[in-house]
Amino acid sequence: MEVGGRVLRARLKLVDADGEAMRRGPVVIEQIAHAFGFGNIGFDFVGLLGGEPSGPDADERVFGGADADRAAPLLPALLDVFDTVTLPFYWRGFEPVRGEPDTERLLTTARWFASHGVRVKGHPLVWHTLTPHWLDDLTDAEVEAAIRARIERDVSRFAGVIDLWDAINEAVILPVFTAEENAVTRLAQRKGRVEMVRMAFETARAANPSARLVLNDFDLSEDYERLIAECLDAGIAIDAIGLQTHMHQGYRGEEQVAGILDRFARFGLPLQLTETTLLSGDLMPPHIVDLNDYVVDSWPSTPEGEARQADEVVRHYRTVVGHPAVESLTYWGLTDDGAWLGAPAGLLRADASPKPAYLALRELIRGEWWHAPRAVETDASGLVDVHGFAGRYRATTATGVTEFDLTPGEAELTVRV
Amino acid sequence: MEVGGRVLRARLKLVDADGEAMRRGPVVIEQIAHAFGFGNIGFDFVGLLGGEPSGPDADERVFGGADADRAAPLLPALLDVFDTVTLPFYWRGFEPVRGEPDTERLLTTARWFASHGVRVKGHPLVWHTLTPHWLDDLTDAEVEAAIRARIERDVSRFAGVIDLWDAINEAVILPVFTAEENAVTRLAQRKGRVEMVRMAFETARAANPSARLVLNDFDLSEDYERLIAECLDAGIAIDAIGLQTHMHQGYRGEEQVAGILDRFARFGLPLQLTETTLLSGDLMPPHIVDLNDYVVDSWPSTPEGEARQADEVVRHYRTVVGHPAVESLTYWGLTDDGAWLGAPAGLLRADASPKPAYLALRELIRGEWWHAPRAVETDASGLVDVHGFAGRYRATTATGVTEFDLTPGEAELTVRV
Repeated sequence: MEVGGRVLRARLKLVDADGEAMRRGPVVIEQIAHAFGFGNIGFDFVGLLGGEPSGPDADERVFGGADADRAAPLLPALLDVFDTVTLPFYWRGFEPVRGEPDTERLLTTARWFASHGVRVKGHPLVWHTLTPHWLDDLTDAEVEAAIRARIERDVSRFAGVIDLWDAINEAVILPVFTAEENAVTRLAQRKGRVEMVRMAFETARAANPSARLVLNDFDLSEDYERLIAECLDAGIAIDAIGLQTHMHQGYRGEEQVAGILDRFARFGLPLQLTETTLLSGDLMPPHIVDLNDYVVDSWPSTPEGEARQADEVVRHYRTVVGHPAVESLTYWGLTDDGAWLGAPAGLLRADASPKPAYLALRELIRGEWWHAPRAVETDASGLVDVHGFAGRYRATTATGVTEFDLTPGEAELTVRV
Repeated sequence: MEVGGRVLRARLKLVDADGEAMRRGPVVIEQIAHAFGFGNIGFDFVGLLGGEPSGPDADERVFGGADADRAAPLLPALLDVFDTVTLPFYWRGFEPVRGEPDTERLLTTARWFASHGVRVKGHPLVWHTLTPHWLDDLTDAEVEAAIRARIERDVSRFAGVIDLWDAINEAVILPVFTAEENAVTRLAQRKGRVEMVRMAFETARAANPSARLVLNDFDLSEDYERLIAECLDAGIAIDAIGLQTHMHQGYRGEEQVAGILDRFARFGLPLQLTETTLLSGDLMPPHIVDLNDYVVDSWPSTPEGEARQADEVVRHYRTVVGHPAVESLTYWGLTDDGAWLGAPAGLLRADASPKPAYLALRELIRGEWWHAPRAVETDASGLVDVHGFAGRYRATTATGVTEFDLTPGEAELTVRV
């Protein structure tokens, strides 16, 4: 299971409560969490875990395609593979009526995931798409104040449950976005990209100094590299660089993906692969520039497409997880039911049955890359070697149970059982 | 999901840290454990979780059919359905050399299960079969002293991890057992059944007053009823009556099973269905009296047999779980690999693939009879109705997470979130 430098080796010394080495005997070593973030979106589960929306604006408060009844059977499938979820904070859906944010539903959903060991990311705090309609009538100064107030309110309220945010989404296109009029683009044209990024990051940072804040974009060109460099030069503290990799027009291949990762790794910041899709059906034609422009009546998952998707998912995960700069990889969608653009991008079919890609991914993340429980014998000094992916582990002996972290650089660990 | 009186209803009042009722909002209710014990044997996992046996007597220390490599993929299948495991304390395997018990391996295995929320039962403390050979040369007084010392040692050593024991196994046949000479039968002929039962229960009780002690037998005739009555008349404190139901000669049917349960329920003690098997292949001929006498070269699982087994497993579980006197139901074997007598009694095939009976049982125990996570809305007083099987539950709101027990007779519960 060698994947770049991901597999760590450590020597564990088991000692009793008095610090005396355990004598020769069995110890069960097992992994209980990955340090690497294997993510998916949790949009489909807001209805199930936060309650269905109600009231006259209920239609606008829907995220994801599945209602509670359809989402229920998907939850075990999510938890069997993924340890990180992205929850939707699209402003239009989160606060369709000014002053009535959907805090309770999202916070209950987020807390449920967090209390089940799933890391939660909020997405996004600032974006020009899906802005609430009530923003359109405000002046630029009022729009900026509303954005700052929204960030301050939501990042504070969710602190401790959500400490990871896409602070700003798609800032490269932000001032030149033309698909629809919106107040955020208008503001960005006046302030410029860097100051928009600064506003998002500094407001969020002030609201939750423990939060991890991500700059996220689908633009993987030199324009994005230039923006990152400008933001860093301007003194903005970016915790991680987010790279979307929707591949509706076909898998980019190992070489191109590795090239992208290398280019963005040069900033010395961790990379997050934030939005990953690979189709199990026809590909979108290459001439489409804005993926939203491609509209089809039906876009089925096919047997050949599913075989291709499984192969590509495994190759893509091996490439990305094998790159030392990457800290997380989020697939964008669990099921075809309600998938973005109607594309067969899910790992489960619309009827919730697993595609080959789902099974292959589970076998990687919780199989080949996972240390399942197994007893080993300590030597006469209570020593035992452990190797596995970085993460949280548990050791069980005849006398007790304890947890420890396998982290890079920690070659020797003393564990009290 | 009505199964006799198993489904309880309660009104939950959610309050904050100050005892104030929660205002209207979402709460996710989910079951995290059954009060009823859905058991299976854990024999196959001793090598995986306690380490493979070593030393010159390693061959005698094997329990179950699977070595660690074969057991590893079975563990998730076990935990996906069952919440209780029976671990083997057959004396011959546990202590083949006097004074060298296999404590570390069994205790590590038991602790692993217990720390994963699985209840562990030890089986058995006294039995005439699989006694260690070194017992044969002792006098009756020495045999009795050795039995008492063994119970005292093991029940003490495992207390807190194993607090549930088959104190004595198959006491009805014990003094008249003729299949092989053994020191326990010899002792039983002198002491009589009731005093053998007393010895087992009172020694175990003294070693761990918190332990739950079971009288277990395959003899479901009036002879067993008579023995139970005699033991109770003699003042022996029996916590539960164990009923083996190996059905290698065919499913007994709902009516006969219900009749057996009614007959043994009359003592007012909880019933444990301790050893349950239903075959997915040919049945054993009805003329066989001691099941051990039936030896065949090959006993395959068949498609017709698997369909029949799935149907019978569901009918049997509905009958048993629907009877109010029963507190647990243990299936005897997860896989055909190494199953007792070579029979296709497993819920998984020898290649670890699930038989229809496994899938049907999972759908019952963790589907129809399980309260999966789902948000409901509290009313303006913070009240919400919960109904589900007795067991441990969790409530998650926007402000916190808490656990509570759904138990018979508790119609109103106040839960602090």
